[in-house]
Parts: sequence; C-alpha cells; structure tokens
Amino acid sequence: MSKRIGIIGAGTAGLQLGLFLRRHDIDATIYTDKNPEEYAAGRLPNTVAHHAVTVERERALGIDHWDVNDFGYFGHHYYLGGPDPLTFYGDYHAPSRGIDYRIYHPQLMEDFTSRGGRIEYRTLGEEDVATLEAQHDLLVVCTGKGTFGRLFPRDPEHSPHETPQRALCVGVFTGIEQLDKRAVVWGASPGHGEMIEIPYLTFGGMASALVWENHIGGDLEVLRHTRYEDDPAAFRTLMLEKLRTHYPMTFERVDESEFDVANSPLDILQGGVVPVVRKTSTVLPDGTTALALGDVNATVDPVLGQGGNMASYAAWILGEEIVAQDVFDARFVEVVDARRRDRVLAATRWTNFMLGALDTLPKEFLGFVGALSLDRRLADEFTDNFNFPERQWDVFAHPDRIGAWLGKDRAPELVGAGA
Amino acid sequence: MSKRIGIIGAGTAGLQLGLFLRRHDIDATIYTDKNPEEYAAGRLPNTVAHHAVTVERERALGIDHWDVNDFGYFGHHYYLGGPDPLTFYGDYHAPSRGIDYRIYHPQLMEDFTSRGGRIEYRTLGEEDVATLEAQHDLLVVCTGKGTFGRLFPRDPEHSPHETPQRALCVGVFTGIEQLDKRAVVWGASPGHGEMIEIPYLTFGGMASALVWENHIGGDLEVLRHTRYEDDPAAFRTLMLEKLRTHYPMTFERVDESEFDVANSPLDILQGGVVPVVRKTSTVLPDGTTALALGDVNATVDPVLGQGGNMASYAAWILGEEIVAQDVFDARFVEVVDARRRDRVLAATRWTNFMLGALDTLPKEFLGFVGALSLDRRLADEFTDNFNFPERQWDVFAHPDRIGAWLGKDRAPELVGAGA
Repeated sequence: MSKRIGIIGAGTAGLQLGLFLRRHDIDATIYTDKNPEEYAAGRLPNTVAHHAVTVERERALGIDHWDVNDFGYFGHHYYLGGPDPLTFYGDYHAPSRGIDYRIYHPQLMEDFTSRGGRIEYRTLGEEDVATLEAQHDLLVVCTGKGTFGRLFPRDPEHSPHETPQRALCVGVFTGIEQLDKRAVVWGASPGHGEMIEIPYLTFGGMASALVWENHIGGDLEVLRHTRYEDDPAAFRTLMLEKLRTHYPMTFERVDESEFDVANSPLDILQGGVVPVVRKTSTVLPDGTTALALGDVNATVDPVLGQGGNMASYAAWILGEEIVAQDVFDARFVEVVDARRRDRVLAATRWTNFMLGALDTLPKEFLGFVGALSLDRRLADEFTDNFNFPERQWDVFAHPDRIGAWLGKDRAPELVGAGA
Repeated sequence: MSKRIGIIGAGTAGLQLGLFLRRHDIDATIYTDKNPEEYAAGRLPNTVAHHAVTVERERALGIDHWDVNDFGYFGHHYYLGGPDPLTFYGDYHAPSRGIDYRIYHPQLMEDFTSRGGRIEYRTLGEEDVATLEAQHDLLVVCTGKGTFGRLFPRDPEHSPHETPQRALCVGVFTGIEQLDKRAVVWGASPGHGEMIEIPYLTFGGMASALVWENHIGGDLEVLRHTRYEDDPAAFRTLMLEKLRTHYPMTFERVDESEFDVANSPLDILQGGVVPVVRKTSTVLPDGTTALALGDVNATVDPVLGQGGNMASYAAWILGEEIVAQDVFDARFVEVVDARRRDRVLAATRWTNFMLGALDTLPKEFLGFVGALSLDRRLADEFTDNFNFPERQWDVFAHPDRIGAWLGKDRAPELVGAGA
C-alpha cells in the first residue's frame, strides 16, 4: 500500500513523527515556514521539559544527543509560600531534560533530512490543499497556524476556558546557581502565581528557565507586560524583587551581578495560553484524512510541563498505527484516538484542575499537599507521575479520589533513602 | 475503601464478574429472578459458543469444568451455496466450546455461592432502587429486563437497526453425526439465510446446536413461525427438507430416524434480535453509579457468536477496574469504557456488517470469500479472528481494507499442514 505522509509543522510532534516514520522507511515530508537557521535565531518558542518517558522515546528514535546525566534533572523541590511556607522534595524514576527548542528542533530537522526525510520550507495556503492531497495518503497537522491549522474546531466538551488562565512570562536566565543535584524548583505564591525554575540547556550551556505563571490581577502580573528591551536593568531589578518576595527558594541561589537573559532579549516570551482541545480529524475535499497532532489536538498551559510530552507520546502512537495500518480512513482515526486520548485528555484535565486548585486552594488540595510534605513516598509518586498524566487525573478526577490515593497501601518509607 | 458490588442478572456477564470479584475477595451480590433449578428446567435461552479467549478467562476463573478436548471444537467449515457452491475450512489457534447455558449458568451459580458470593432470588422493581443504592457502592446491570434494565437508553450512533435482521430459529438437536475433527459448519444459502451447526454439550451429552438465521421473506422464514409443539413430526420433516435443500454439508450427516430435539420441546427458541448499543452508565438518585454490562451494553444478532464472548471480555475488564480503583465515579466509567469499547463496538459493527453483506453479497465481500477458499492461511486467520472482533472490523471497516488485508505479507502456506 502507498504510505506517503505529509506533516505540516516542524515542532516536537511533527519532527518526532517524521523520525519515527523514517526509522520504518516510510515516505515523510515536513512542511514548515522556517529553516533551522531562522529557527535557531528566533525568539524562545516556549520552555518545555521532556520527562523520562519522552527521553525514552528519543533514545528509541536515535535523537538522544544530550546525556541526561549531564543535562537532565532528577526531581522537583516544591515550595508553597504563605505565612508558614511548606517545602518538600520528590524524585523521578529517571531524569527529565530541558533543552532550548532553538537547539532541539534544528537538530531534529537535521536528523530527519539526514535519514531521508524531506522538508519543504514554505507557507501553505488554500491553494496548496489539492496538491498536498494528491501527493500524500495522510496529512498530519501539527501547527495551528494557517489554512490547515484552522481545519480542527474547538471541542467544547473538553475546553472549559475561553481565555488564558495565567499571565505568562517565561525566559532563559543565567546567574542562578544550579542545585548540587539538579532539580526543578516548583514554587507557588498563593494569590499571585506559580514559578517553575528548570535546569535548561541553551546555546551557552546550562542555564535556568524561569516559567512565571502569574495570576491575573496579582502582584506578579506586571511581569507579563514589562518589556526587557525597553530597559534591561529595570527588568532585571523587577524580576529579582519578585523572586525575593515570592520565590525565596530560587532567589537564595541568585548571583545578582550575573542575573540576566542567557543569550539575548529573544530569550524572553510573554503572553498567555488558552487551554483548548480540538476535534482530532477531518476529511479533505478529495477524501484524504487530515489528523491533528500535538498542540493542534490539545493546547495546555505550561504550568505542569505536559505539552511537549503529550505531543511526543501522540506522535509515537500515530507512527505505530501508520506502520500497522494500510488504509487511513475513519477506522484508522478511531484507533489512533482511542490509544492517545486518555493521556492527552488527562494532561489537559489535570493541568486545568491544577490551575484552578492553585487559584482557589480548596481544602482537599491543601490536605494533599500537606500529606506529600510529610511522606516522601507520596512526593516521589506524585513527582514521577508528571510522566503519566492519566495517573494524576486518576487522583484528582473526584474529591474522594484524593483521600483514596493518599490512603493506598504502599511499601514502608525507607528512612534515609534517596536524595 | 468500601467495595460492595451489586450485580443484577445471572447471565454470563454477571456470573463471570461475580466470580472474578470473589477471586479478589470483593463483596458481590447477584440478583436474579430464577434459581438454578428453574434455569435448568427452562427453555433454551440461546446457543452461544465460547471462543478460546473466553475459555482462557474461564480457566483463570476456575470454571473450566468441561475439557475442550472432549467438548470443544477446532475450526469452521464454510459453505457458500448457489449454483457453484464454495467450501473451505479454517482452524482456530485453540478450541472453542459450546455448552447449553441451562448447564453452564447453574454451574457458575453454584461456583459463585460456594466461593462466598451471595445470590438473591427475586424480581427487582422501582421500590428496590434506594435499598440497592444503600447496600452497594456500584451496581452492575446485566439484564435488560425490569426497572434497572430500562436505565440505559439506546445509543443511536451505534444502533443502525430498529428491527431484527433475521428470523431466528435455534435449537439443540440429536441425530447429526459429529465430524471426526469437531467443527462448526457455517453455511450460507444466498437469498435465504445462514445456518450455523455447532457441536454442543447438552444434558444428554454432545449434540448439535442449529442456529437458523433466516432472511425475512426467504424460503426459510417459515422456520421462525412453525411450532414444534404443534406437530413434532411435521416440524422435523420441515427442518430436514430445509437442511437438504439449503445446507447439504450438515444434511449429509443426518440420521433421519434419530433427528429430533435433544431433550424436549424446550430445546427450541424462535424469535428475532434487534441489534442495539446502549449508553453505558447512569447515576442513580442517591449518587451510586449503575453500569451496563453484557447484553445491556450491546446486543448482537447471534450469526457470528459474539454475544457471550463480548460479555465475558467486558466482565473481566470491569472486574480488573473494580479491583484497581477505589472510587466508582465518572472517571471509573470512562476507564472501563475506554478498555472495553473497541471490542464491544467491533463485535457489533462486524456482526451488522456481515448481516448486510450476507444479504446483498457485494463484490468486495464475494472476492473476500473467494480468496479465503483458495488460501488456507487466510481462512485460518479469519476463523481465529472470531476471537478478536476488532481485528475483523479492521478488515471490513472500509472496502479498501479488504484488499489491503488480503494482500498483506504472510508466511508461505505449508502444503499439507493442518486439518
């Protein structure tokens, strides 16, 4: 059977799918409007971390170019501020890794073309639909931009929000000392926001991504609107002041004289994400199936770092089904959706739940955080489950589930074990 | 967590679920209106065969009381009548088994109670809902009869038919010689119907179930309406005449002097099945989840023998999730449905597809049958896939899929191998 796959968009979903297909000798063409040099020279597109399940897939795809022992991190420190701050730590079963996508995507583009993949650098429009249908047996849409991105309407059942839930300011910075054992520092400042510090590989080496998830109307929202370019010194002063006030676990490792964007003003991205789940497929005028993948399928707020992992997971499943099946029809879509749906929806629901819970701090949620702070086994399990969002959703889908999860039989805690 | 499971209905779904739960020491009560003696003394409820995947579950449940080597069968002979009849044979990977449910269900009831399960013999009504909710953390509804059966409305998306697609006459008969290697004989008489002869264990030992799937308006519909009780000799004569005319592969093994119902006039069941898929769950007034299982979830025509296997499969999955989860909420239902849905829907869709294809004999379908008759590997794979209806649906979901399946790479045929 003819399997000529067209992939629109060169993000993590599109590139990992392309690389999967090339490993199985399947004809794959990626369409994107930016070449690797433009991509590398552009603004920071986001601050994504890849968890161990994604690193494992990267290993299998032969794109594990960055040793996790050198560039990864091993767990999460949690900090819940307030009059009586709470801190605790949880380990992963295996390291996560944060790499500047301006390094990662160009590298994957090179891997893809060197393994026989084709990339066409151009902007697609209405006039390309018929040609792309004629040239491909399946079109996979991984960018929400343009003609193809608009094919997939919002799924209202799974899209509770119409506006961004946080005022975001994310960036890559130097001047923050890495912890001896590299880890994310996941801070929450009740009423004002959350801030996630991630060990991050950028052009000059290891630095720190700071993901400011500012509550709208809180003391930190100003970071969403203050431009670094307008006055770099004032921006640094403002951010340091907010770090000192709200996120002392990070601030205590800052060397104020060194604190700055890691490479250039392009290291900062500000804005907001509307969480959305979209219809997963459509049939084009000549009968070719177009399937949504990655952010086009579901876009989540970055607060839990699920977007890239969800995209990678779904790309792998789609790759397996393209290999296994011969006809890309409604049944094909159904099988793909059935396999990816729970993780994709769980990442979305868990993220939306946490955004709400971190806003309103309901009793059950505070009880959950308190229990984690007192039992390392719980903290480890919760932390490792960043790999498995469906397990997190199993904990939070109903208030009764939190108590049930906390009360589960677990092996006794080993005193003194772990970090 | 409290796990007190109420199961309404003592068919294959309810009993296998109850037995699964008892193996995990979970409190289970079955409600049914007939005790084992009444059940054993009643009319033949259907003519179900359990395929190897179901036998495997029966083994794991400790209810494999009937050695498949003595009572099972090993494959299907196919007969497509017409001016130039076509016959071929396909093997299973492991035997199937047909047991009179008037033996099977009472045995499982005994197994269930001897392992600590409770059975309450009574008819439930509106007045029982509140009590059952108070006494159970989850209610599983496995009979469409009565108050609880009416809780689950028809799902129109997956229920294309409003009326039975065949005029059924099923029964258990003696006087048909078993094949040396026991097998189903699966016959089709174009324009008139299908007839499935199944080696069947009934009270007196091995006999033959005959499942007459008569086309409405065809030469065989009369079997749906002719009563054995009115004139046993006339009934036998009629059935023998129809066998001779339409299903010679079975008729050639009939000893006319011995041909009769195996036990009593209660061995015959006539009627029709409206294929239907229903909503899978509802929440009762006090908040308890009620879940549809087996025939209540989906009812299929018996032409492909999928009903009992589907029920057993879904019961197993539900049992696993009851063991694994602690809160029986919407998330619980979602996880159960996600796991059982593809097989349940595929059994429904494949059965409905075959009923249509056997009516209209489209070109692709005749090509499929012809290809099977010429290549034993195809016939074996198709036959064994009666265990896996989702694989059958993968073949028939789109006309292009038939050609793709026939053209798949397969190991070379071993000349002379097999039966």
